[in-house]
Amino acid sequence: MAVCNVSLQVIPRGTEDIYRTVDRVIELIQKSGVKHVVGPMETTMEGELSELLELVKRAQDICVSCGADRVLSVVKIDYSPKGVTIDEKVAKYR
Amino acid sequence: MAVCNVSLQVIPRGTEDIYRTVDRVIELIQKSGVKHVVGPMETTMEGELSELLELVKRAQDICVSCGADRVLSVVKIDYSPKGVTIDEKVAKYR
Amino acid sequence: MAVCNVSLQVIPRGTEDIYRTVDRVIELIQKSGVKHVVGPMETTMEGELSELLELVKRAQDICVSCGADRVLSVVKIDYSPKGVTIDEKVAKYR
Amino acid sequence: MAVCNVSLQVIPRGTEDIYRTVDRVIELIQKSGVKHVVGPMETTMEGELSELLELVKRAQDICVSCGADRVLSVVKIDYSPKGVTIDEKVAKYR
Repeated sequence: MAVCNVSLQVIPRGTEDIYRTVDRVIELIQKSGVKHVVGPMETTMEGELSELLELVKRAQDICVSCGADRVLSVVKIDYSPKGVTIDEKVAKYR
Repeated sequence: MAVCNVSLQVIPRGTEDIYRTVDRVIELIQKSGVKHVVGPMETTMEGELSELLELVKRAQDICVSCGADRVLSVVKIDYSPKGVTIDEKVAKYR
Repeated sequence: MAVCNVSLQVIPRGTEDIYRTVDRVIELIQKSGVKHVVGPMETTMEGELSELLELVKRAQDICVSCGADRVLSVVKIDYSPKGVTIDEKVAKYR
Repeated sequence: MAVCNVSLQVIPRGTEDIYRTVDRVIELIQKSGVKHVVGPMETTMEGELSELLELVKRAQDICVSCGADRVLSVVKIDYSPKGVTIDEKVAKYR
């Protein structure tokens, strides 16, 4: 199965501190073991699409468990049957 | 299970006509039976999050079957344990 | 100058009611006289890019004047030297 | 004037190589002198909102000058009267 890239930005509402909730979502991604890059507006993950969408789904519940009564998320998918990697896009800028 | 809103914009690359591919994705959503609204930049669906993310995933393969060698998608999720409906947001503007 | 499409979703933080703030932003767009379509996750405008980006900018201050201490916005631009219209995309779905 | 964050992803159509066009847009941002972070799905800039939206606008024309007949862009704005910085969001993850 070809790998793809999925970026996730969560915007929780009803929580005092947005960063504490975002940190918990990043922790979920870190613990999942998928390759990822944390950016200022989104975290980009690399892996199989189903696996990454499952993380997107679990991120919603993490926000709720942090006190959010509503979560707006922006998810970007970069998909190709040939595979898409983070490195092919940013390696030269590191 | 509370309903949520998921908006999907697909941007296929490598296909001659972007609208023909987008039409096929909208057809997928229509046939799924989920409530939805077609907009100029995205189609918004209402339903259970897992079901809607499954449609997002299948939309990738539809674009590939239409000839795309790569697909960029923008997905927005509006999620709440209490539920989020399309009508609460746009009914007064119709 | 060719027209383009710009979609705007504002997500204010720190306001009691998200919809009241969004309504004020939609009011700004309505009063501007640009062609637009209100959707469940974003409002799409049609016009000259500079003019539409100016509305995007003013929308930030409207959210702040409604009590937001922070505003997250998602803006999508569909741009072509030949012009891009809302009708070419959704007329057949109306 | 408080600084804000603006992320830009450009998706040009009609160009052979998407990365060459994206590189030109990143070059525009680099030459502008604004603080920025290049990510796998978007480049995040920090500065005054008008200045950053002007760069977003100029990026469209750069894509066209690279051969694009259409450009889809995703722009995210993180705005606060108190200011928003890239460092407050990602410093601890570097």
